[in-house]
Amino acid sequence: MSQIELIEAPTTLSESLQNVVESHRVDAALHWLDNHPPHVIADELARMDAVEAGVAFRLLDKDLALAVFEELEPVDQQQILQGLRDQTFRELVEGMAPDDRARMLREAPAKVAKKVLAGLSPRDRRMTAALLGYPEGSVGRYMSPEVVAIPGTLSVADALRIVRVKGENAETVYTLPVVDSGRRLQGIVELRELVLTGPDTMVADLVVTEPAFVRATDSAEKAARLMRETNDINLPVVDSEDRLVGLLTIDDAVEVIEAADSEDVAKQAGSAPWEGHYMAAGVFQLARYRALWLMLLLVAATLTVSVTGFFETTLEQAAQLALFIPLLIGAGGNAGAQAATACVRAVAVGEVRGGDLFKVIWRECRVGLVLGGMLSVVGLVIGGLFVGPKVAVVVGITLVLICAWAATIGGTMPLLAKRLRIDPAVVSAPMVTTLVDATGLIIYFTTAKLVLGI
Amino acid sequence: MSQIELIEAPTTLSESLQNVVESHRVDAALHWLDNHPPHVIADELARMDAVEAGVAFRLLDKDLALAVFEELEPVDQQQILQGLRDQTFRELVEGMAPDDRARMLREAPAKVAKKVLAGLSPRDRRMTAALLGYPEGSVGRYMSPEVVAIPGTLSVADALRIVRVKGENAETVYTLPVVDSGRRLQGIVELRELVLTGPDTMVADLVVTEPAFVRATDSAEKAARLMRETNDINLPVVDSEDRLVGLLTIDDAVEVIEAADSEDVAKQAGSAPWEGHYMAAGVFQLARYRALWLMLLLVAATLTVSVTGFFETTLEQAAQLALFIPLLIGAGGNAGAQAATACVRAVAVGEVRGGDLFKVIWRECRVGLVLGGMLSVVGLVIGGLFVGPKVAVVVGITLVLICAWAATIGGTMPLLAKRLRIDPAVVSAPMVTTLVDATGLIIYFTTAKLVLGI
Repeated sequence: MSQIELIEAPTTLSESLQNVVESHRVDAALHWLDNHPPHVIADELARMDAVEAGVAFRLLDKDLALAVFEELEPVDQQQILQGLRDQTFRELVEGMAPDDRARMLREAPAKVAKKVLAGLSPRDRRMTAALLGYPEGSVGRYMSPEVVAIPGTLSVADALRIVRVKGENAETVYTLPVVDSGRRLQGIVELRELVLTGPDTMVADLVVTEPAFVRATDSAEKAARLMRETNDINLPVVDSEDRLVGLLTIDDAVEVIEAADSEDVAKQAGSAPWEGHYMAAGVFQLARYRALWLMLLLVAATLTVSVTGFFETTLEQAAQLALFIPLLIGAGGNAGAQAATACVRAVAVGEVRGGDLFKVIWRECRVGLVLGGMLSVVGLVIGGLFVGPKVAVVVGITLVLICAWAATIGGTMPLLAKRLRIDPAVVSAPMVTTLVDATGLIIYFTTAKLVLGI
Repeated sequence: MSQIELIEAPTTLSESLQNVVESHRVDAALHWLDNHPPHVIADELARMDAVEAGVAFRLLDKDLALAVFEELEPVDQQQILQGLRDQTFRELVEGMAPDDRARMLREAPAKVAKKVLAGLSPRDRRMTAALLGYPEGSVGRYMSPEVVAIPGTLSVADALRIVRVKGENAETVYTLPVVDSGRRLQGIVELRELVLTGPDTMVADLVVTEPAFVRATDSAEKAARLMRETNDINLPVVDSEDRLVGLLTIDDAVEVIEAADSEDVAKQAGSAPWEGHYMAAGVFQLARYRALWLMLLLVAATLTVSVTGFFETTLEQAAQLALFIPLLIGAGGNAGAQAATACVRAVAVGEVRGGDLFKVIWRECRVGLVLGGMLSVVGLVIGGLFVGPKVAVVVGITLVLICAWAATIGGTMPLLAKRLRIDPAVVSAPMVTTLVDATGLIIYFTTAKLVLGI
């Protein structure tokens, strides 16, 4: 009965659907659908191709269909919508929360979007259009516009009456923004406070003045991270004149943070950010998301060919140097990637700020020297095993220098990127690695020339 | 007034503290502290060294001190505690929520832990000890034990009366578990439902039976991801006999997910997971977290030296082959890292399961072939620019093979790790890269021998 177990082994919807297709027997599929919660059904649908998912979806009864639909990612929602008859289509779209609807429409092809908007009541259409009017990535795109706001002049009993009347349509009633007659935000009061206090208390005595809040045009990621810091479950959103326009709820905030983190991880591995389900994506789709960066990095790697070419005579005079090329640039790349990842993360969560640039350089340079010193001991041993002591010394010295250099570059690039208003995650580990590869080779061959006297 | 702006430029606490130390003037520091919210103050404290943070902390008045203290990470909390006098120490520790206290104690040195436990009331001590009794990383460590549970036989009015009486001590009253006479979980009811319905309705009519729930010994990360899927703000936690023991609240769940994700990111970059504040960590501390992996990877890279050594005669006969070593192993490493990152993520969020192994192999192999085919065109051009057509052809063919091989390895390793019950993130991008480096060289030199006929 534990939900967690259900997630582990729900591999039979697809099989039970075979019965529907092959022998028109729906009972196995219906039984499966009846016995799994909406998010597990949604997860199964996301793994299926469009046709199969469409068949399964049409087996759901109305309420469950909506619950499952809301659990799906926007891309999967569109796929389902395209296969539905008009009546079901309209019911689904009407049942969605305004912010979820806006998010789906944002990415839908124009044809679907038009059909969705046409199926809405004038009120819903207005609300959805308003959300879509906010810039991409802004809080306005993610907030819930249906909010129960209360005047600060009421008693608790009157405030609870307003909550009862208006609460049904609101996504949350746990955070109640307090507004003045011009709907300007004055503070917030928690439903908890209203319930725990006597009915005659005045709302004004319970209100938190100067609450954390954001503007609808602010970055959604910043707003979400602010909520994480303040541990609020809802954050009031105001327009440019401080009038309340919505609430950012914690589930949407977490989604924003997770999307931003996944994007950072993808970029740091040199892929374009990717929102779909891994198992549902086609081979060419996956390749497309990786191709651009891989190509750019390959072109950038031409530098390493030039550098090695430039030192060709050095290499001819001491052919054994070639043996350690992969090991040395590998070590440099790893040291650089460690530093880059640590700093991208620190910048993203706000631990490191623009003004810390020189502190970070100094810090990573010393960390790199410490690590390089340790590695050089191992390097000397490995060098001693494979080649003579002279080349081993070259390897040892190079490791110290390459680690210090790589950590400094890796730690600095994300901050420099931030200063130049480039996304720090784009200056990703593979980019640092490729840069360090080329410069590392210069360090290696120069050290070799000096030590070996060639 | 916007909180977001405050986060951007709060760089004067440290400066204003200089006044305290040098001329015993505290007004600048007090003014700064008065005008910033607790999470911003906590962020500043985390960036300071222990002495400075201690001075600043003692300037806070009692209520603000607790609010700031709760925003700090466990490591920083311990640092602050060590510098406090007994009275303040006891007040702080008593004021913390039981789950936060348990989390701090988990990592505290024995001396601090003993002192903290000694300062608690018997009831608090019992509760804290109970939380500490659950295994590391389990839900029990993160849940809030103080829960308002209600019997399903009551009317809404009576249920609200219980909430009023018992709600003050509970961390949340928004999700109310419904229990039978043996405290076994029967369902949940949302405070929202109680408030929006008439007082004479029975709780039994509002209760959600078969709610999502977890056991206290279940993995906290799994529980947190379950909450994300179900969009609940609180998740009931039961013991092995289905008796209610606590609630996992959304803020703790998000913290668990973020910690797990940060850990994955760190491991994928070949670092040990690291919880402290980047700017507050010492150089040797940072180095220690990175040293082990860097060392292991260096030793693993010895393989590349052996492989290159094995093909030394090939390399002597066609010295130009050395020029492309960094480029080719770089491309393979990048393709492998992309696949590894995508699959680690897909495994972590549950998109890919153990049974998908062969699907993933087949999928990544084809993605790699497509990408390799594209790169080989560029490779042929680069090869043509620097060396003759024959070596260029070797480079082109190698790129196709190396990309297909790297993507397959990169995509498969996380799943294989999961099957072997190793953390997929440990089979990280740099580990895949190092493996692909060595095997890629074999592919390169073998292709060269065949094409060049040497």
